[in-house]
Amino acid sequence: MSLTVAEISVRYGCRVQGDPDTVVERVATLENAAPGCISFLANPRYRRQLGETQASAVILAAADANDCPVTALINDNPYAVYARVAAELSPPLVVEPGSHSSAQIHAEATVPSSCQVGPGAVVERGALLGENVSIGPGAVVGANTSIGNDTRVLANVTLCHDVKLGERCLIHPGTVIGSDGFGIAQVSEEWIKVPQLGSVRIGNDVEVGACTSIDRGAIEDTVIENGVKLDNQIQVAHNVRIGAHTVIAACVGISGSTTIGRRCMIAGAVGFVGHLNIADDVVITGQTMVNRSIDEAGVYSSALPMDDARRWRRNSARFRQLDEIAKRLKKLEKKVGDKE
Amino acid sequence: MSLTVAEISVRYGCRVQGDPDTVVERVATLENAAPGCISFLANPRYRRQLGETQASAVILAAADANDCPVTALINDNPYAVYARVAAELSPPLVVEPGSHSSAQIHAEATVPSSCQVGPGAVVERGALLGENVSIGPGAVVGANTSIGNDTRVLANVTLCHDVKLGERCLIHPGTVIGSDGFGIAQVSEEWIKVPQLGSVRIGNDVEVGACTSIDRGAIEDTVIENGVKLDNQIQVAHNVRIGAHTVIAACVGISGSTTIGRRCMIAGAVGFVGHLNIADDVVITGQTMVNRSIDEAGVYSSALPMDDARRWRRNSARFRQLDEIAKRLKKLEKKVGDKE
Amino acid sequence: MSLTVAEISVRYGCRVQGDPDTVVERVATLENAAPGCISFLANPRYRRQLGETQASAVILAAADANDCPVTALINDNPYAVYARVAAELSPPLVVEPGSHSSAQIHAEATVPSSCQVGPGAVVERGALLGENVSIGPGAVVGANTSIGNDTRVLANVTLCHDVKLGERCLIHPGTVIGSDGFGIAQVSEEWIKVPQLGSVRIGNDVEVGACTSIDRGAIEDTVIENGVKLDNQIQVAHNVRIGAHTVIAACVGISGSTTIGRRCMIAGAVGFVGHLNIADDVVITGQTMVNRSIDEAGVYSSALPMDDARRWRRNSARFRQLDEIAKRLKKLEKKVGDKE
Repeated sequence: MSLTVAEISVRYGCRVQGDPDTVVERVATLENAAPGCISFLANPRYRRQLGETQASAVILAAADANDCPVTALINDNPYAVYARVAAELSPPLVVEPGSHSSAQIHAEATVPSSCQVGPGAVVERGALLGENVSIGPGAVVGANTSIGNDTRVLANVTLCHDVKLGERCLIHPGTVIGSDGFGIAQVSEEWIKVPQLGSVRIGNDVEVGACTSIDRGAIEDTVIENGVKLDNQIQVAHNVRIGAHTVIAACVGISGSTTIGRRCMIAGAVGFVGHLNIADDVVITGQTMVNRSIDEAGVYSSALPMDDARRWRRNSARFRQLDEIAKRLKKLEKKVGDKE
Repeated sequence: MSLTVAEISVRYGCRVQGDPDTVVERVATLENAAPGCISFLANPRYRRQLGETQASAVILAAADANDCPVTALINDNPYAVYARVAAELSPPLVVEPGSHSSAQIHAEATVPSSCQVGPGAVVERGALLGENVSIGPGAVVGANTSIGNDTRVLANVTLCHDVKLGERCLIHPGTVIGSDGFGIAQVSEEWIKVPQLGSVRIGNDVEVGACTSIDRGAIEDTVIENGVKLDNQIQVAHNVRIGAHTVIAACVGISGSTTIGRRCMIAGAVGFVGHLNIADDVVITGQTMVNRSIDEAGVYSSALPMDDARRWRRNSARFRQLDEIAKRLKKLEKKVGDKE
Repeated sequence: MSLTVAEISVRYGCRVQGDPDTVVERVATLENAAPGCISFLANPRYRRQLGETQASAVILAAADANDCPVTALINDNPYAVYARVAAELSPPLVVEPGSHSSAQIHAEATVPSSCQVGPGAVVERGALLGENVSIGPGAVVGANTSIGNDTRVLANVTLCHDVKLGERCLIHPGTVIGSDGFGIAQVSEEWIKVPQLGSVRIGNDVEVGACTSIDRGAIEDTVIENGVKLDNQIQVAHNVRIGAHTVIAACVGISGSTTIGRRCMIAGAVGFVGHLNIADDVVITGQTMVNRSIDEAGVYSSALPMDDARRWRRNSARFRQLDEIAKRLKKLEKKVGDKE
């Protein structure tokens, strides 16, 4: 597989600086590119590698074009152009239709002949797969779960019963969708289970990383809207709703009944308290504890920056005196003021 | 399936306000209930939805009864009554006895005929299942592991060897019980493995969420007592002991040899340092770092609340000066005091 | 299996205090040891249990030898000696060569006859296993993945395609290696996938805990060097590099392209921002947010210690005034100074 710079420029709307007949065959980082490679510059952190690159062509923004020692493809969004070019040069695995002899497909499940069902996969009663769906080895599709066209469910994923998954989704290994929400009611010192009767509805073009869990709703459904991208090791509790095109990095936990708006960007290890409403276009930085609803777009934080442990200990010990410090300051201000 | 309000009131000790012959067939939220539905009010956050509800009956506390526009079932613990009613109206799946032809049950394992073993499940040598146990598709029951009556192990769970699981437990998909604890000993710059020779003992009526891991003990066992409820994505290290009826929300990590008391409530993303002792009836709020033992019941915290990122940056930068601020304040106090 | 104290002393370089003919058959904690047991003292927290121990022999440091009521094996690193003795007394399960009849091994995979492949395991096309490799029940070895000699991949692990795993590694259940990195590029309000074309390379003697995820690289590989030990529930993003003999406790998240040096020790629930460089021999305490690169060895922190919730609330409310407090203090200092 190869492309010329001219082809790329036409398909993805780039301006060419240099030789449009340059041929590229694979992608590479600026630092490790060899002739025949195409690279990109999107993160300013890597700008210093541009001058030395051995790539045959580089996708970059206009501001960086002057420093490019090789053929340049200039576009306002070099990372997106790179994504398209990389997909062309390294096409994803195609679905090979057919069910492996060791796959266990219930007689009352619907699996079109365009689907691929891997070794050891299980498709339970009433499950309904669209066209070109791929179910990886060891994955389990629960009873009455439906999966839209062109969705790929990878190895050892568990989709519980009655889950609805849209089209063109990609679910990475080890992930669980539709487990019971954490619904318990206290009766004297014991806890009894609150049945989790809702399900999970996932829109189109949703990607879910590895080892992530999405619980079914207690009464109504947990909902993940179109185009949401979830990373690995995320916990989505019952009756959470995540708005379209929101992206959430790894290790985030979202407590029950919290609604997150559209186009939000949530960094790693953020934790959301339950029953919150988060507006559209909110950005939350890493390790923040989101302990209240957010009414307007903006950037929000709560994690302290790292420090040398010795200095840290001194400062964090003072934290326990902070209220007292504030009161002493006020008293002193009063005293000094009074003297005037 | 349907119930009358009179039946519910008798079974669960509710006072009826309105028509005891009201028939309910399914549960719903106050907001989305239709006639024939029964709903409940337990969280004051949803009180404003009571006046408009279309439910046929609502379970609630006496204080809310006056505002209920429909038949009311009055009880001090409406959430628990709801849980019971929901379980009656939507009974959980029953175990269908029998082993799927693709399940791999070792000849030296004990699997009573009342058990269900799903497609692709594996039961290894010496495993001992009680009556009515259900093993989900793709789940693995390790050698010599024993499982009490009526316990359900869902899809793709891994129970390692020699684990003991009590009666009426529920283990959600993707969870691992009995993996090696993180025991390593340093020898010059390398680390050698410390054999993990204990196991995991789990009591009765324990629920464990999805994608949770519970390590086996190093020498003695990791122990989860009766009635404990663990949510998803929790890490329980070797030789942890969790007291009866303690509940732990998602994303919590508990380091090795820490003991947590009975009836504790641990919110999401809390982290426990190792070798601690936590008293009974302790409540810990979200994202707290529990860095010392807790001797008495109470509520404990350490996570800062979220703020606008700009203000946050200013304040967190000052945090690094906190010790110095405290010293300057003291000096100033001395100076002002000296002048008097 | 049994050993004499004399045998242990010779093999592991211990000085004997007491009877070298003492026979030990199994390991135990100081507190619960019975005659025939060997125990150890490495953590000062357990020193008070030494005087009462019923063990037949105890491995300990010279400083503790005087207080030992039974035969002592004295060594500078008692925990490491214990690890060796425990491994001798309780040898790990041996690999039983052979593939279970229900394992699905692709005709174009290479699986030497010395390997064990468990029930329901899947080995895909082009996979290449070394000698004495063990693949647990339900585990999946992706296409073209290679595994070095003597490595054990436990139940329900997923190794995606083209992963490289070294010799003598141990991968615990539920873990996923080689899932796609979280690479997405924004195009107006939508996000498109950036192909993840690198893989994961793991060195020799690496242990990976349960429910951990290690993503494949975007262009180049994610790399875990020799002797690294990873605990459970860890997230390793694309293009992370972890230096040899670094150990990482549970629930840590490492964002993309961050490089961690050799011999680092990372405590639980630490989060790393992306694109950082962490020096060799760095120690990071629990729940720290590592938000910048670290140039020199040392100990680093950012998590506040736990407090009673009421006092906590007062202090954390003041945190929001910290910048203002600092300014008021400065003003007051000026004022008091001016008066002099």
